[in-house]
Amino acid sequence: MGVVGPLAVRGEYVDEDVYVPLATTEAALIASTNRGCSAIRAAGGARVRVEDVGMTRAPVFRTAGLEATRSFVHWIEERIDEIRRIAEATSRHLKLLDVRPKSFGTTVLLRFRFSSGDAMGMNMATIACDRIVREFIEPETGVECVALSGNYCVDKKPAAINFHEGRGKRIFAEVILEAAVLRRILKTTARALVEVQYRKNLLGSIAAGAQGFNAQFANLLAALFIATGQDPAHVVEGSLGITCIEAFGPEAVYASVYLPAVPIGAVGGGTELGTQREAMHMLGIEANAERPGMAALRLAEIFGATVLAGELSLMAAFTSQDLASAHEKLGRGHVPTEPRPGRG
Amino acid sequence: MGVVGPLAVRGEYVDEDVYVPLATTEAALIASTNRGCSAIRAAGGARVRVEDVGMTRAPVFRTAGLEATRSFVHWIEERIDEIRRIAEATSRHLKLLDVRPKSFGTTVLLRFRFSSGDAMGMNMATIACDRIVREFIEPETGVECVALSGNYCVDKKPAAINFHEGRGKRIFAEVILEAAVLRRILKTTARALVEVQYRKNLLGSIAAGAQGFNAQFANLLAALFIATGQDPAHVVEGSLGITCIEAFGPEAVYASVYLPAVPIGAVGGGTELGTQREAMHMLGIEANAERPGMAALRLAEIFGATVLAGELSLMAAFTSQDLASAHEKLGRGHVPTEPRPGRG
Amino acid sequence: MGVVGPLAVRGEYVDEDVYVPLATTEAALIASTNRGCSAIRAAGGARVRVEDVGMTRAPVFRTAGLEATRSFVHWIEERIDEIRRIAEATSRHLKLLDVRPKSFGTTVLLRFRFSSGDAMGMNMATIACDRIVREFIEPETGVECVALSGNYCVDKKPAAINFHEGRGKRIFAEVILEAAVLRRILKTTARALVEVQYRKNLLGSIAAGAQGFNAQFANLLAALFIATGQDPAHVVEGSLGITCIEAFGPEAVYASVYLPAVPIGAVGGGTELGTQREAMHMLGIEANAERPGMAALRLAEIFGATVLAGELSLMAAFTSQDLASAHEKLGRGHVPTEPRPGRG
Amino acid sequence: MGVVGPLAVRGEYVDEDVYVPLATTEAALIASTNRGCSAIRAAGGARVRVEDVGMTRAPVFRTAGLEATRSFVHWIEERIDEIRRIAEATSRHLKLLDVRPKSFGTTVLLRFRFSSGDAMGMNMATIACDRIVREFIEPETGVECVALSGNYCVDKKPAAINFHEGRGKRIFAEVILEAAVLRRILKTTARALVEVQYRKNLLGSIAAGAQGFNAQFANLLAALFIATGQDPAHVVEGSLGITCIEAFGPEAVYASVYLPAVPIGAVGGGTELGTQREAMHMLGIEANAERPGMAALRLAEIFGATVLAGELSLMAAFTSQDLASAHEKLGRGHVPTEPRPGRG
Repeated sequence: MGVVGPLAVRGEYVDEDVYVPLATTEAALIASTNRGCSAIRAAGGARVRVEDVGMTRAPVFRTAGLEATRSFVHWIEERIDEIRRIAEATSRHLKLLDVRPKSFGTTVLLRFRFSSGDAMGMNMATIACDRIVREFIEPETGVECVALSGNYCVDKKPAAINFHEGRGKRIFAEVILEAAVLRRILKTTARALVEVQYRKNLLGSIAAGAQGFNAQFANLLAALFIATGQDPAHVVEGSLGITCIEAFGPEAVYASVYLPAVPIGAVGGGTELGTQREAMHMLGIEANAERPGMAALRLAEIFGATVLAGELSLMAAFTSQDLASAHEKLGRGHVPTEPRPGRG
Repeated sequence: MGVVGPLAVRGEYVDEDVYVPLATTEAALIASTNRGCSAIRAAGGARVRVEDVGMTRAPVFRTAGLEATRSFVHWIEERIDEIRRIAEATSRHLKLLDVRPKSFGTTVLLRFRFSSGDAMGMNMATIACDRIVREFIEPETGVECVALSGNYCVDKKPAAINFHEGRGKRIFAEVILEAAVLRRILKTTARALVEVQYRKNLLGSIAAGAQGFNAQFANLLAALFIATGQDPAHVVEGSLGITCIEAFGPEAVYASVYLPAVPIGAVGGGTELGTQREAMHMLGIEANAERPGMAALRLAEIFGATVLAGELSLMAAFTSQDLASAHEKLGRGHVPTEPRPGRG
Repeated sequence: MGVVGPLAVRGEYVDEDVYVPLATTEAALIASTNRGCSAIRAAGGARVRVEDVGMTRAPVFRTAGLEATRSFVHWIEERIDEIRRIAEATSRHLKLLDVRPKSFGTTVLLRFRFSSGDAMGMNMATIACDRIVREFIEPETGVECVALSGNYCVDKKPAAINFHEGRGKRIFAEVILEAAVLRRILKTTARALVEVQYRKNLLGSIAAGAQGFNAQFANLLAALFIATGQDPAHVVEGSLGITCIEAFGPEAVYASVYLPAVPIGAVGGGTELGTQREAMHMLGIEANAERPGMAALRLAEIFGATVLAGELSLMAAFTSQDLASAHEKLGRGHVPTEPRPGRG
Repeated sequence: MGVVGPLAVRGEYVDEDVYVPLATTEAALIASTNRGCSAIRAAGGARVRVEDVGMTRAPVFRTAGLEATRSFVHWIEERIDEIRRIAEATSRHLKLLDVRPKSFGTTVLLRFRFSSGDAMGMNMATIACDRIVREFIEPETGVECVALSGNYCVDKKPAAINFHEGRGKRIFAEVILEAAVLRRILKTTARALVEVQYRKNLLGSIAAGAQGFNAQFANLLAALFIATGQDPAHVVEGSLGITCIEAFGPEAVYASVYLPAVPIGAVGGGTELGTQREAMHMLGIEANAERPGMAALRLAEIFGATVLAGELSLMAAFTSQDLASAHEKLGRGHVPTEPRPGRG
């Protein structure tokens, strides 16, 4: 467990310098992200904005065909208030935001979207859907729910619907880096950064048929998730997203990260374990019953700024071709053959 | 850290019953995967096959255009032996398997593919590419390498090229489950399983624009990766793949998992840490200098069978709608609001 | 120009048997689709449902970053009524349905969705967006529109957003084929059809990383589009979609086609040419000022049933491996080397 | 049917100025593409390169599982010479280039790739595969071919494998446009073009989850295909690809188009019809038995340059927001409501 920072977060909920725990066996990640934090600090901080998309669960149903589907979807729309009542009765932290149907042939998927306070919400959403389905939809309509999850949520598989609609928290972070900061801290130039961004995050990702257009969202999120008790498998959602680096004036750059689907929680699950609780404490994340959801939004803002820090430093490393050498220098002595996993 | 098993692995390298460590905060995952292990045991074991695709790294270059690109790619092809020599001089464990170019406009990506013995190989591949690029390709051709990774490798972003070409280990596991096993152990039927498979892993994933057609590869791989010291961010690659469940006779099923891109190592990186070393020992994974690569292949076979076990049990859980109730029963007492992350 | 039919269409707007013109150089397509029409006729007709998603155009804007984007999107939401007024003033047939923003970094895409009566609507939408942007958004906000189309519409490129959100007409068609019809007309069985569907439209498409899960939507739509004066390049949108064939009882099948994005018009563009006008007349498609949009919906229903007819016959042809032989028999004598383009 | 040109093609097979027929109801397309031709002419011509990827057909087989699949694939590899002999006996124009297997579970796809001389080759490939499968593979191995096309070819559906592996002809075209040409002919600047390219073809396409990163490949290809007797449904493959526009010095641009999958033929199919034969004659495309395949390569080069011309002009039109006004001015008088289909 390493710590990076101070990271200057300029969000709506977090407007301070924080120290961020990262759980990783890769010393180079800590050093590199720290360098990104320095650059962000020199730039006056990372602006961050987050949106609570909500946690989704999408049961899949089988109908007799188009007419039955039409009636079924209409029935769902007509009963939305009752459905909401049933869902929200399963937990005082749960709110049903909407239900979006997708149907074809004899298949109907209902993507339920819930806000879940400070919890990541997957369990809450599953329990709520189970209640809605077993106690209301199935008995009332006679339509069979084939599975409580129809892979349209989508949980832990990369998917366009998560990229487009979001899942969990949608996170934006940006910073403007002047020439002096680029040169002094990141050992790079605007021109070189923009070129790497173009060939790697845009053209290379396009050529690869990718759903992630970034250098290493997954590395930072994995380290953050493990440190704070998130579900590490949700790194899959977190790998979706777009890094942008654009010329800003003749020698500066505008840099941003966009992560549309980051399922995280400030309470529950692994967040309750000892080390993870301490990490949350270090981050100043504390659930407050009077402001439900605020802690998770604060956490999301910090995650966004941290991802930006890591992204900036790695992208800069590419411009000076020092990726391999950085890894060589920072390896752990006791690894004879494979010093550390590579990055990006 | 939990343990599942005995898991009957019938691979080419592992043909025994093993106990498998899973690092997770989700008790339900352990219980569920154990149930899958029971089913596999009753079925005589999981047949597993693995292929060493190799670790990839894809530097991106800028040329002056089509003619320059053509000459450059031709030059690479002509010098492949020298390139191989330079690469393989960086480590005695490294072999260059091939280089596949992709070009358009002024951009050339060279996807280098290496075998790396028992190591996951990302660092080795990066160092080798760095040497090839800085000491040979750039000076000899004058063509500029814009970045050592052009996002065409692809490391830790979901991408079609990884799905299609593979990365790390390509893993296949299968088993035939008779009616009695389905009923007694998984509490399900062939008919119900095939229906869930159709609506969820096939149609639901298709509707979602997914690159993963499975219930929870990512959950099992995250738990296995953390337990054995793999890079957790590589769960992104591991989430790609296809589960198939087909009727086999009137009441049995054929079930398989296909994971085209699983970057793992039996040595190096986090595998050298104390707890992870013990986990490897439990799995019987020991690098042998006389059989380089064997330990990683054995590990891959065990991973494949474990993923299959988890997949079977979760898919069966969906048929009896007991997903939510299982989570409710197995939650950890000290979690007030969000018992555990949901699954699948 | 060939003709298929009678095609028994059981839609909401078309509930009759129609003869359908297909413009193709491939005699096999006519014969095959006719066979599908026979099967549909014997089955009592194809049920069809259509939805008018509307025509989309998505200008792309550049802002200074997150704060500016937030203000801009908020401004758009606040001014939606004015925006609607300006858009609808450009044509009496145009209605603005909604505007959906997508933003990250310094980029904002606004996907405008319009209903356009009986016209396909691309020109109308472009002109309306041009008015909105140049006369209102840009002057009022100072935010620069970089391009009137940001490739987020998406016009004539395959894209997940078209698959998910739709574009033009969303079309569903289904039919149940009993064993006798399968055997007598399509020379196949339920079991064989379901197997081909599974291996080809589902697993094969998945393996290929496809966005179309069907045998030949594009062939039928190309022939229909050219016959009726649609824009042939819109076959790209039309190739998206899902064919489903499922066992229905022991020996029958339920078959459906789902086409989420079919941009078509009953008036305007090439529909006004002589031959195409006649084709529309054959189909009974006539714009009626008192029922704007009805003619296009009728056309969509006929298209859906025709695509279903072609799909059924081709899928059945695969089960008896007679694809190649059908092509060999129906070739045009004067083609020495390449009789006709292959299909599916 | 309109004509554009003179188009200065600087290919390996075509090194002259050609007049190109375009079949379209959209006068604006002709005018716009002509403008692109002017720009290319002023720039000294479009450099074009083409590769004959070959026509593909991918039968799908069902095995008993992993072991059976392994034996089957091995058998195919061992018998490749016999397979080649059988395939090539079906037509003197056909050569089998390779067979690439893809397997998982009980499914095996074999993507056969053939060169087919001057023909597009879909029929040839289908007939050859039919012979190989029915007379050799099935009887010899006992493995059942479920369908002659497993949707892994992929014919007429957008798919990553076509983007990555190619299909038919792979086409590259490029040109450098100096400031004077940009200003005088395209009424634009390097800076504006590069900005539109970035926000539209790169970021917009990325946001849309697209497989086409271009403005209007499909429009030009549709017009070219219909004019020359290609299969219009193959516009689906043609819509895949990447346009690049990059700063070249302070005021010029490098512009390129990359089309990885363009199935076309110089003989056969609709190319034999009267009007289409004339179009081929206008293009100087004539099959020569002593140089099989040359005519198709020449045609591909002309297509590439034409697509580039259309792309340049439309991208430039976006920079001056004149897309809507161009359409308004060039509409056909007799279209009351919907002048013409929109573009790009």
